[in-house]
Amino acid sequence: MQRALSVTRADFPEWYQAVVREADMAETSPVRGAMVIKPWGYGVWELLQAELDRRIKATGHENCYFPLFIPMSFLAKEADHVEGFAKEMAVVTHHRLKTVDGKLEIDPEAKLEEPLIVRPTSETIIGDAFSRWVRSYRDLPLLINQWANVVRWEMRTRLFLRTSEFLWQEGHTAHATREEAEEETLKMLEVYRDFAETVLAMPVIAGEKPENERFPGAVNTYSIEAMMQDGKALQAGTSHYLGTGFAEAQNIRYQTDKGDWAFAHTTSWGVSTRMIGGVVMTHGDDDGLRLPPAIAPRQVVIVPMLRDKPEDAEVLAYCEGVTAALNGQGVRALLDKKPLRSAEKRWAWVRKGAPVIVEIGPRDAANGQVTYMRRDALRDGDKVRSHAASRDEFLGGIQALLGEIQVALYQEAKARLDANIVEGVSDFAGLSNYFGPASEEGNDAFKGWVRVPWSKPTGEALEAVEQQLKSLKLTIRNAPMDQPEGPLGPCVFTGAPAVETILVARAY
Amino acid sequence: MQRALSVTRADFPEWYQAVVREADMAETSPVRGAMVIKPWGYGVWELLQAELDRRIKATGHENCYFPLFIPMSFLAKEADHVEGFAKEMAVVTHHRLKTVDGKLEIDPEAKLEEPLIVRPTSETIIGDAFSRWVRSYRDLPLLINQWANVVRWEMRTRLFLRTSEFLWQEGHTAHATREEAEEETLKMLEVYRDFAETVLAMPVIAGEKPENERFPGAVNTYSIEAMMQDGKALQAGTSHYLGTGFAEAQNIRYQTDKGDWAFAHTTSWGVSTRMIGGVVMTHGDDDGLRLPPAIAPRQVVIVPMLRDKPEDAEVLAYCEGVTAALNGQGVRALLDKKPLRSAEKRWAWVRKGAPVIVEIGPRDAANGQVTYMRRDALRDGDKVRSHAASRDEFLGGIQALLGEIQVALYQEAKARLDANIVEGVSDFAGLSNYFGPASEEGNDAFKGWVRVPWSKPTGEALEAVEQQLKSLKLTIRNAPMDQPEGPLGPCVFTGAPAVETILVARAY
Repeated sequence: MQRALSVTRADFPEWYQAVVREADMAETSPVRGAMVIKPWGYGVWELLQAELDRRIKATGHENCYFPLFIPMSFLAKEADHVEGFAKEMAVVTHHRLKTVDGKLEIDPEAKLEEPLIVRPTSETIIGDAFSRWVRSYRDLPLLINQWANVVRWEMRTRLFLRTSEFLWQEGHTAHATREEAEEETLKMLEVYRDFAETVLAMPVIAGEKPENERFPGAVNTYSIEAMMQDGKALQAGTSHYLGTGFAEAQNIRYQTDKGDWAFAHTTSWGVSTRMIGGVVMTHGDDDGLRLPPAIAPRQVVIVPMLRDKPEDAEVLAYCEGVTAALNGQGVRALLDKKPLRSAEKRWAWVRKGAPVIVEIGPRDAANGQVTYMRRDALRDGDKVRSHAASRDEFLGGIQALLGEIQVALYQEAKARLDANIVEGVSDFAGLSNYFGPASEEGNDAFKGWVRVPWSKPTGEALEAVEQQLKSLKLTIRNAPMDQPEGPLGPCVFTGAPAVETILVARAY
Repeated sequence: MQRALSVTRADFPEWYQAVVREADMAETSPVRGAMVIKPWGYGVWELLQAELDRRIKATGHENCYFPLFIPMSFLAKEADHVEGFAKEMAVVTHHRLKTVDGKLEIDPEAKLEEPLIVRPTSETIIGDAFSRWVRSYRDLPLLINQWANVVRWEMRTRLFLRTSEFLWQEGHTAHATREEAEEETLKMLEVYRDFAETVLAMPVIAGEKPENERFPGAVNTYSIEAMMQDGKALQAGTSHYLGTGFAEAQNIRYQTDKGDWAFAHTTSWGVSTRMIGGVVMTHGDDDGLRLPPAIAPRQVVIVPMLRDKPEDAEVLAYCEGVTAALNGQGVRALLDKKPLRSAEKRWAWVRKGAPVIVEIGPRDAANGQVTYMRRDALRDGDKVRSHAASRDEFLGGIQALLGEIQVALYQEAKARLDANIVEGVSDFAGLSNYFGPASEEGNDAFKGWVRVPWSKPTGEALEAVEQQLKSLKLTIRNAPMDQPEGPLGPCVFTGAPAVETILVARAY
């Protein structure tokens, strides 16, 4: 069978790179680990960002912008935070270059007194601002969000999934009480869950991370986890309750209504361009990307079938009418007039994942017809499946069709997620047996996730579990918010009575 | 007279700081020269950005994202560019910290082989991508825009006007011919002019910068210049035709339709958060900020006059109805329910520059009335001017009222600009006499701009003019696109026959 890509999902890592490249979403840059996000990829980000921003504002948050650079001493303030983070960060040490014998050099006289860190996350610099902004209980809750670039030096990078620089939003809030801060943490987790499922059509499991996977300095960390088509987990968003630890380190204090002073309870939460990698690995197929209509920069692409003949003008005029009618009802439609063969254009849009691809030839134009393909259901067996409709039928039904595609992509992914969470593994040997030995090549056989009883060990006992899991290249993803009722039996790792169930998986 | 600010425009620099602070737009940060943009300032930026982004896309450009870091060697490629820029930049030299005896330090083993520069502008890194993306004449024009943060180390900083880190958009395009690239350069200058005047209500003069004020490496640089209320000029946007210099340095070549190879002609153009400083200094008055409705995060603010009495509930319900009706017709309206005295809230919104401030008490609620102030025309002599209208009248007329305020702010600023461009100065002595000697304190007497004949000297002759102007703290702003007809007389500086007129002014 002829496919639009030369690689299939059987070689998942290669396939992923091919989809991103062939959909023209992003490319590697000469700067180690940083990517160039190209118009199609950035267009997805803009739509994702606009919709998430709307939801963040609808829950009462306001956007701000804080400095890119963080004084090194700020990072040292919260001991657990620095312990967890003090590793791979870009450090600015000088503020001037000079030309020496025609060669560009760092000016040694322009050394900074205190090195500056390019933000890997902004808890410390935003906390510093909060310490000035919060005086009284009347100033709380303080609900702030920032859209920004952040840098975490990475050794092994992959477009969208793990890059040294990435784009994200980071919410930061301060509250009077633990209850309110916990409520906020869970509210934003739910915003992420609903956003991922409704807008990205990417089903996720929301739950709490185990102690060893918490954000450095956090009291509780929650995540949404999505299942990629190779069965691995992708953490697609996190929400943290930070307790009063950051507030104490940064002196975020407020006067209560009784006149005494208390430390604020803070939270932080974020999602990033990584989500786009999740979309690719959730919806892509062997013909390339498939985009949910909600985040498709072009929802309908019209390809005119031209033959360098006089009737071309009529076809083009007809296509322009259809495009204008679509745009007129708020559909993001494009008439592709590039000077390429129409078959070439069709396959380019298949690889880019445009939800609906319309091909219009002289016969369609003459008969007031439209021939289109649904990218979510491109093939019937090996053959490409086309649909014919009258122009009016197509224009009248396009909103419903896009909605149907959005739901179909979600349901396909949801069925995969639901079918591939294995239960009933009762001890570590069973787990080891199920996943098989970790190989250097990457453990590419589809395994999905395993849900097991968990006794919530801490300290050395937890470290021992981590080591056991590491030997199989496994991690605990989270303890889902939805927990089963009734007795759970013994913990798979410790044998002690379980208090909840957790998801174990290989992960990105 | 009681004013909402403690400083007046008579002390313009102090006044500026007070407006930005009292409107709660931004504040200085512990990181030298970087600012924190607070919700009200960032809200203005978001509206400005959304509208400019729409216009940039409507002219055929697509958004991308390029790396924050630029390898030092990239900057050295274009000789004029590096000469002009190789000064104050943030340099990343290491990629890891470590903890030594509980203290955070730079890990000396994590020194980068090649230092990375935090982008001061992105011509070089984007040019590198263009060299991969451009192969054939079919790939041209390539029309790209980026919204990003940039860093230029500054010694003297001022919120919005000059900060080490700022937010901006930078357009970068490549074209087959000089004519097309020049057309693009002027097209974007015109987009900026229209945007500044229509959206920011800030009248500007568009024109070409003299040779000595060109962007490093550019063939032509154009700018829009706005007149602040102290008579100084603010460069609010620039557009550059870069010739083939950058293309040659970065190998942006294309195969023509005849099969031979040619270098592309490139352009770049940008505006930044500096525009917000321009808005403050164009529209602010002695009561604080005045925002054009098009960029006001809240266009109408409703302050309920509550007295801790039973009828408060009725007033609040009435206010909520008015707010909902406004939001329902797309007006950005806010009901301010903060637990503060209503007079305090009124003055806070005056200082923040909300275009329409509504105060509603029990009598208004009972009579179906609305009492409101226009921020653009707040006072009648010393007294605050209130308007009364029926609820229906107010709701039916609000769009027109906001439009009227937008135009009124523009016209007020336009009248000031038109009245303060002095002509008829015929020699340097006259210029020197008009502006008076440069003082260390900052030359705060209002002078406006002077328009003089100019012979376009180059080389040493131009340098001599620059020195003359520098002694008076003056600069050439631009040669306006609109030039007078007929003979211009001799150049004010060289005495040679003039070929155009230029604007001379003190500037930010």
